[in-house]
Amino acid sequence: MRNLSLAKVYQKLEPGPVVLLTTAIGGRPNVMVMSWHMMVEFEPPLIACVVSAANYSHAALLKTRECVIAIPPAELAKNIVAIGNCSGRDTDKFEKFGLTQKKAAQVMAPLIVECGVNIECRLVDTTLGARYNLYILEATQAWIEPKLSKAKTLHHCGFGRFAVDGETIKLKSEKP
Amino acid sequence: MRNLSLAKVYQKLEPGPVVLLTTAIGGRPNVMVMSWHMMVEFEPPLIACVVSAANYSHAALLKTRECVIAIPPAELAKNIVAIGNCSGRDTDKFEKFGLTQKKAAQVMAPLIVECGVNIECRLVDTTLGARYNLYILEATQAWIEPKLSKAKTLHHCGFGRFAVDGETIKLKSEKP
Repeated sequence: MRNLSLAKVYQKLEPGPVVLLTTAIGGRPNVMVMSWHMMVEFEPPLIACVVSAANYSHAALLKTRECVIAIPPAELAKNIVAIGNCSGRDTDKFEKFGLTQKKAAQVMAPLIVECGVNIECRLVDTTLGARYNLYILEATQAWIEPKLSKAKTLHHCGFGRFAVDGETIKLKSEKP
Repeated sequence: MRNLSLAKVYQKLEPGPVVLLTTAIGGRPNVMVMSWHMMVEFEPPLIACVVSAANYSHAALLKTRECVIAIPPAELAKNIVAIGNCSGRDTDKFEKFGLTQKKAAQVMAPLIVECGVNIECRLVDTTLGARYNLYILEATQAWIEPKLSKAKTLHHCGFGRFAVDGETIKLKSEKP
């Protein structure tokens, strides 16, 4: 993995890909699927996300105030659905789904080797946590896997239906 | 346009499409481009979004506490970029870009006839407005245009680069 400039993190999350969110507490890592996230600020990158209190990852995120957002390639679709349909309460999802952990630079939550982008985050604002399970993360370090730089991502449309990235178009624009 | 069940609104926004946000104040409508939005709750649908105070639409959204989120088809890409590169301060964007307004049922902001989905929203929470320009909207009525039901949407990757929806895949999943 190579370093990804924090200024470019938004270009990976703004398109709305399905992501994996990893946490680790007491030496035990976990991973969940997340589609409710958005950029809030370019740099340092702030990211809002919804992590339901019903998710096993919720307690780890709140206690450690750290996580990793990893963007999986479309080829992992079947695993992504399976990860979303079981819980870290009773399953070691890394082992079950053959995900390879890599030590992050700044947080205890692991990077996922099979993902094209990994973003190390700190939980910086829980103001809307109690009301909506809405949390603000700050990206402090990001990684890109050159071998997966052309990987297509998935966009979830509900109940296991996904739009896969198709063609890319480029129009002249001054706006980031 | 036909009624779209509020319970299905998330299926349209969760994939992360570029959207248009319309407002109207003093009889004057405006439209901006937005990619920083996410679902917060299924039903009634709550949607978080970032509307910068630098956007001309910001004042209208805050004063009227109403807006419409419209999802344009990929064919409108050129117009979307152009809409994002000018301001309602000095431009009637509906006229300039040939967008057709339609009266909404519950809000003063107009629906956009050329968009496949239109979602009427009320601004319900400004707690994080001052800090991040982050606002919570509640969808109160939604519309779908059957003629555009197969329309592909755009996912912005920065500076006029977009991923267009490609194939749709369907995997067995119990999760909405």
